[in-house]
Amino acid sequence: MTRAQAAPLPPGATVGILGGGQLGRMLAMAAARLGLRAHVFDPDPAAPALAVAAARTTAGWGEGGALAAFAAAVDVATYEFENIPVAALDAVAARVPVRPGRRSLAVSQDRVDEKTFLAGLGLATAPFAAVDVADDLPAAMAATGLPAVLKTRRLGYDGRGQARIDTTAEAAAKLAAIGGGPAILEGFVAFEREVSVIAARGLSGAVVAYDPGENVHEGGILRRTMVPARLPPGTRAEAVLIAGRILSALDHVGVMGVELFVTPGGLLVNEIAPRVHNSGHWTEAACVIDQFEQHIRAVAGWPLGDGRRHSDAAMTNLIGAEVERALELARDPALRLHLYGKAEVRPGRKMGHATRRLGPAAE
Amino acid sequence: MTRAQAAPLPPGATVGILGGGQLGRMLAMAAARLGLRAHVFDPDPAAPALAVAAARTTAGWGEGGALAAFAAAVDVATYEFENIPVAALDAVAARVPVRPGRRSLAVSQDRVDEKTFLAGLGLATAPFAAVDVADDLPAAMAATGLPAVLKTRRLGYDGRGQARIDTTAEAAAKLAAIGGGPAILEGFVAFEREVSVIAARGLSGAVVAYDPGENVHEGGILRRTMVPARLPPGTRAEAVLIAGRILSALDHVGVMGVELFVTPGGLLVNEIAPRVHNSGHWTEAACVIDQFEQHIRAVAGWPLGDGRRHSDAAMTNLIGAEVERALELARDPALRLHLYGKAEVRPGRKMGHATRRLGPAAE
Repeated sequence: MTRAQAAPLPPGATVGILGGGQLGRMLAMAAARLGLRAHVFDPDPAAPALAVAAARTTAGWGEGGALAAFAAAVDVATYEFENIPVAALDAVAARVPVRPGRRSLAVSQDRVDEKTFLAGLGLATAPFAAVDVADDLPAAMAATGLPAVLKTRRLGYDGRGQARIDTTAEAAAKLAAIGGGPAILEGFVAFEREVSVIAARGLSGAVVAYDPGENVHEGGILRRTMVPARLPPGTRAEAVLIAGRILSALDHVGVMGVELFVTPGGLLVNEIAPRVHNSGHWTEAACVIDQFEQHIRAVAGWPLGDGRRHSDAAMTNLIGAEVERALELARDPALRLHLYGKAEVRPGRKMGHATRRLGPAAE
Repeated sequence: MTRAQAAPLPPGATVGILGGGQLGRMLAMAAARLGLRAHVFDPDPAAPALAVAAARTTAGWGEGGALAAFAAAVDVATYEFENIPVAALDAVAARVPVRPGRRSLAVSQDRVDEKTFLAGLGLATAPFAAVDVADDLPAAMAATGLPAVLKTRRLGYDGRGQARIDTTAEAAAKLAAIGGGPAILEGFVAFEREVSVIAARGLSGAVVAYDPGENVHEGGILRRTMVPARLPPGTRAEAVLIAGRILSALDHVGVMGVELFVTPGGLLVNEIAPRVHNSGHWTEAACVIDQFEQHIRAVAGWPLGDGRRHSDAAMTNLIGAEVERALELARDPALRLHLYGKAEVRPGRKMGHATRRLGPAAE
């Protein structure tokens, strides 16, 4: 990145957003609040972010011409999810800065690369082993112990592409069930709770983090995040430091979600996401500058917010048909409701979230 | 209004917004947060709200076909400013509910009708008299005393179309300078401060108000609003009650801004605006449900927020070239910045605002 590129984008400039789901939608609105134009690229003409975007491209990830035209129309590009093909990112990056960069994307796309990267930083993770083919299973199970979880190396999210293995006998069938590999086998971690740190790194290299949130998953999908997490102060600080090390090692620019397991032996890194994160939606109701604006600020080369929260909060996802309760939830004046405008309700689909303001944060 | 129309709009429905300035822009984003689609109508293809709207109509207020097509495409309509021709509103209202209704609009459009309406409710206002032609001036000045302010009856905003009269001799020339009439002459009020109440009335008739803000104007334009206003508790309650009486008398549905003068003799009503109001922008940084969402909730027949604030705040407008300070202001992490995405900077033009969170509200 040259110094010239590091100048902050002026109001009126255009931020390109690859991916038009709910995260892209909330990023587009944050950009608008800063006087920036959002140009959203998504293959789906019904993608929720298109309804709040100043400009829209509907095209596939493999359409080089559309990607080039998108890149020519924006001043900087970012992405809202990590499963964008790296080739698409490279096509855009050939013409315009893409933040976060390809290394953040590449490491997050592959569970083996991700865990190898984290271990290389000296950070603790669950025991893991690559399983390219069924023949790799015995050695992998010896390395992780059982029970363990078999996951696709790539393209998994919200618990999809995963299978639990309790006995060696069932391993080959479970691998076949998730597509036959390449996969990763991860040992079970006896964790007390899961927390996540939403951190941001600016163009200057400065890292800022929100206080860790405590997450509850159900069926592999985030159900609830509470802030503050129930953590001793030392552990809270350690969680933030771990996140900072990861962002700096990747030369990351933007927001990143870092999921951590709290175990009797200390913190383990579960997963990283090089983008705004569902477990950071609470910031919208509890911080002057929320994670979406923080990401846009980082990507645009603006100064970052300080991550402070003014309120304690609990965010609950509205999944599938739960969105039909929205009008009932709207009766509660302490709830900040956020619906994503998705036309089709499907089981397991994130349709919105509601953040309850619990009271003032200890200041 | 029939009972059938009073059912709340479901997520996915479309809210039509007449007017695409910054207020329409913030209303469109609030609608999106509730899963509603915003369709913005504005004559100006560069209107700021168009950049965040799901659907857009660029047409003039006199284009019946465009208004009819707009009305057919939306489930309910609202407006972001009071200078929309009543005929345009009627064209839309013939096909779809318009909230607030035409009475709120008509009363707010004409300063004589507005003051006459307020006086009819038994509310105190500045002394005033209609000045249709120059011959009306002597009696008007006798009624109001001097100095007084001559204002156009219609279409004034941000201090435009106003002239101060200090002597009877200059009255006729001042009237000519603001267009010759019809006008209103308003007596000077020796006020200690100006406050405003942002109140909302739902379809059910329930009225909810935010705490009064204290306003500072410069050159006829709002410069700053601070919450809480420096008011004794009894006066604060009286201000909210006055607002409630006005909204109920108009059968108003939506948010209304009520500007009041605090005088040694009590509260006088200065002006009402049948829409979200610049002096309510602080709610965005200090309330779970801000004035924009509150208005959309009212218009959509949803339950209203309770108007409570979690923080004290001070909102400052960025006017004209002041917007060039945006990146400098962005360094302050206690400021919530909101820029309107207006391409052209003009003196006196509202380009954005910044709300400083001062600390937790007394709860």
